[in-house]
Amino acid sequence: MGIVFPKPDLEQFLRTYTISHFTVNEKETQLVFSSNINGKFNLWAMDLPQLSPYPLTFNDRESQFVKMDPEGRFLLTAFDNDGDENFQIYALRPEGGVPLPLITGEKQEKYFFAALSKDGNRLYYNSSKDNPHYFDTRLYHIDTREDKLLLKGEEAPTYLESISPTEKAFAYLKMFANTYILGYVQAGDAFISVTPDENVAHTVFDLTFVDDNTLLFLTNFGEEFSYLARFDIENQAFTPLLKLAKEDMRSLKWHKETETAYIVTEKGVCDALFAYSLKEDTYEKIALPIETVQQLLVAQSGNLYVLGRSATQSFNLYTRGDNRGWTALTNNRVPGLSQDQLVDPDVVTYPSYDNTSIEALLFRANADVANGYTIFWPHGGPQAAERKSFRGAFQFLLGQGYNLFAPNFRGSTGYGSSFTKLVEGDWGEGPRLDCVAGIEWLFEQGITNRDKLFLFGGSYGGWLYDTPSRRASS
Amino acid sequence: MGIVFPKPDLEQFLRTYTISHFTVNEKETQLVFSSNINGKFNLWAMDLPQLSPYPLTFNDRESQFVKMDPEGRFLLTAFDNDGDENFQIYALRPEGGVPLPLITGEKQEKYFFAALSKDGNRLYYNSSKDNPHYFDTRLYHIDTREDKLLLKGEEAPTYLESISPTEKAFAYLKMFANTYILGYVQAGDAFISVTPDENVAHTVFDLTFVDDNTLLFLTNFGEEFSYLARFDIENQAFTPLLKLAKEDMRSLKWHKETETAYIVTEKGVCDALFAYSLKEDTYEKIALPIETVQQLLVAQSGNLYVLGRSATQSFNLYTRGDNRGWTALTNNRVPGLSQDQLVDPDVVTYPSYDNTSIEALLFRANADVANGYTIFWPHGGPQAAERKSFRGAFQFLLGQGYNLFAPNFRGSTGYGSSFTKLVEGDWGEGPRLDCVAGIEWLFEQGITNRDKLFLFGGSYGGWLYDTPSRRASS
Repeated sequence: MGIVFPKPDLEQFLRTYTISHFTVNEKETQLVFSSNINGKFNLWAMDLPQLSPYPLTFNDRESQFVKMDPEGRFLLTAFDNDGDENFQIYALRPEGGVPLPLITGEKQEKYFFAALSKDGNRLYYNSSKDNPHYFDTRLYHIDTREDKLLLKGEEAPTYLESISPTEKAFAYLKMFANTYILGYVQAGDAFISVTPDENVAHTVFDLTFVDDNTLLFLTNFGEEFSYLARFDIENQAFTPLLKLAKEDMRSLKWHKETETAYIVTEKGVCDALFAYSLKEDTYEKIALPIETVQQLLVAQSGNLYVLGRSATQSFNLYTRGDNRGWTALTNNRVPGLSQDQLVDPDVVTYPSYDNTSIEALLFRANADVANGYTIFWPHGGPQAAERKSFRGAFQFLLGQGYNLFAPNFRGSTGYGSSFTKLVEGDWGEGPRLDCVAGIEWLFEQGITNRDKLFLFGGSYGGWLYDTPSRRASS
Repeated sequence: MGIVFPKPDLEQFLRTYTISHFTVNEKETQLVFSSNINGKFNLWAMDLPQLSPYPLTFNDRESQFVKMDPEGRFLLTAFDNDGDENFQIYALRPEGGVPLPLITGEKQEKYFFAALSKDGNRLYYNSSKDNPHYFDTRLYHIDTREDKLLLKGEEAPTYLESISPTEKAFAYLKMFANTYILGYVQAGDAFISVTPDENVAHTVFDLTFVDDNTLLFLTNFGEEFSYLARFDIENQAFTPLLKLAKEDMRSLKWHKETETAYIVTEKGVCDALFAYSLKEDTYEKIALPIETVQQLLVAQSGNLYVLGRSATQSFNLYTRGDNRGWTALTNNRVPGLSQDQLVDPDVVTYPSYDNTSIEALLFRANADVANGYTIFWPHGGPQAAERKSFRGAFQFLLGQGYNLFAPNFRGSTGYGSSFTKLVEGDWGEGPRLDCVAGIEWLFEQGITNRDKLFLFGGSYGGWLYDTPSRRASS
């Protein structure tokens, strides 16, 4: 008989914590991360290779970013007021303490960090103060406290994104809309688009200087999926460098010492990581310890740091050194359960009414608890996706015996821009028919039947299933 | 100019967390500890050798102890109700979750864990249920849920302290008063005192079975300082084994595989650790990574684990393996300060009015902040001591520039039982004169003068300095 523990309760599944972002100092002796490990968000640190975390702040506020002074004198971060997203810039001792207001103003003003010079003395930032809609870009000299205007934003919100090695060239983004973000480089008097046609809607992001004359960036200019491109400033030449079939490049990090671009891609429900050699024009895939990436960092040494999640694991940090294996730096888990008691979903595809292939996650309850019921979960958005990222509520329902089925119907992200745009104009019918086809597929496969299927889901998903019944009753 | 951080504020110094106790499983793959790292007390764990902590409980209650099932099926712990010290026993999955009541009862009842059999199936405990003053000792069979009375406490609160390897002999403590605690062994029908004279006030503790016939324990029977002694059950023979000059033995852990007793001693302001070989009758001192010990654990492998503090460091956990060096398992520190910015006190002695030597801690503010003032801090109690244990308020005052002087005047613990008893009968005059002598010594040494001395201290300390003025005014 002995001790019989009850099934874990829902609360346990919601007890994993979030790690929202992190950074590492140049020597890789301190890693700083933002986490609600003690209930509210604060900055924490660990002195690598020791992994015991210690708190740096106690103000219970989520920070937007952390940037270390290369000289180790301070770190920069930003806080808003109760989630209003009016972030302003603070400095903190590397050992932590009370954040010191550095570039702050009235409550409604925003001060967004852009870049810090290599000697840690010049701070570039974007400010709404004198330009509430389009932003000004300014330079603050930390040593002299001198502050000057660099660029007045016009036409659209304009943000300095990066600075060239000698701080003579600057890369900007102009954000016309979520799907229409252009990249510009300012060098001398010129202010030039990095893509060939400013009038075609496309996006540019992660503008990264390789040297004073060369920019790497990600863009979907003329393509379904974002790819790696180069811009040569002197010759004003745009060159696509690397396109991966059906993979959307989401994040770019440059490692100067080896002239390598590290690129995180999104492909349906999973992310992947690639290293692209600019000199050789070759690339290799790097295995990841997690399935979706929140943040990637490449240290000067070439060591990689990654923050991410899997279907059975909440946010954790990992590092990869010379031996090419990943080491966990955190141990964020569902209390009361070992990871093998959680369910890793099958990634399945099924044909919809018009033969469009739809990808879905199928979570099957473990045999010892399975109750035969299946929950159909259409994600919200609809221009979003259900991915292999830990969801406590899913794992709780699986532990109670329910299967779960979550299709990425048309309109979902991660399957190309045309697929995402299929719902623009009609947000209901296409996705609804994809879901109906998914339900029929579940029946055909014998996974569930009419009596054992639940429909679930909030926001757009809820609306989706209201539609037919409302239609029938009207 | 650059970024000028303000002096750390008091709050920062009070932000270190407490670790109250810990345990390690047999394979040393999991360490569980009780800590308020997230604000309230909960159980946390780390999967050694990985040092990332993860929470096991979320009930925000301080636990009394943790004991691991040797088979790894559960862990045992105890919680009270809002600090009423009516502890009751709960079981928890090793992965954590919601604690399961195991041996609990009405709110006013106490259930104190005593021992767990080597197979993890028999739980010995002390219960106030049918014997609210003197306690019953009971045995709960975890596998069959059978529960039976072993011993009815009489005369004084009686607690089972340990069980022999075959569970045929049992060691009990009877607590007549804080300074009058006797040890007994029950074997067959006999119930025998382990010290030669039950009528002399003395203390016995940490009764530890070496085998079914032999007990080791600590006692101050007939001595100023507690020492290591043996009791031979068959021959009813008491034998002192190891006495250390002016060191009070405070804790005993037995390592069966090497027949070694590990002993923590208290000597004035610091603790020390010794390994005593029972076979060889020799001992060696083991260097500690901290200055005062909260808890020592000896794993089956012989690895040591210690929880403790120093003057410049709050609670941290350390382990010591084959290489004999200590490795930190936690990184609990004052945010905003490196350890070398904190002040390690000098341990000084001065002669009092009657030439009694008084030990004191003298904290000198760092030269760059020193303001010339000295704070005189008489500890409370008075039968307590100021030791080399981290105090946030001390370090804050030192950071503001004040020196601190904390004497262990007569009545203090850690200097022999006679010294402690010197204040029984008159709690005021002796300590007061010791403090006056301490102040004069500070003047003589040129550390401070009449205009730059503050008197401080709560409880007994405050009363101490009221006395002369009240006397003068009456």
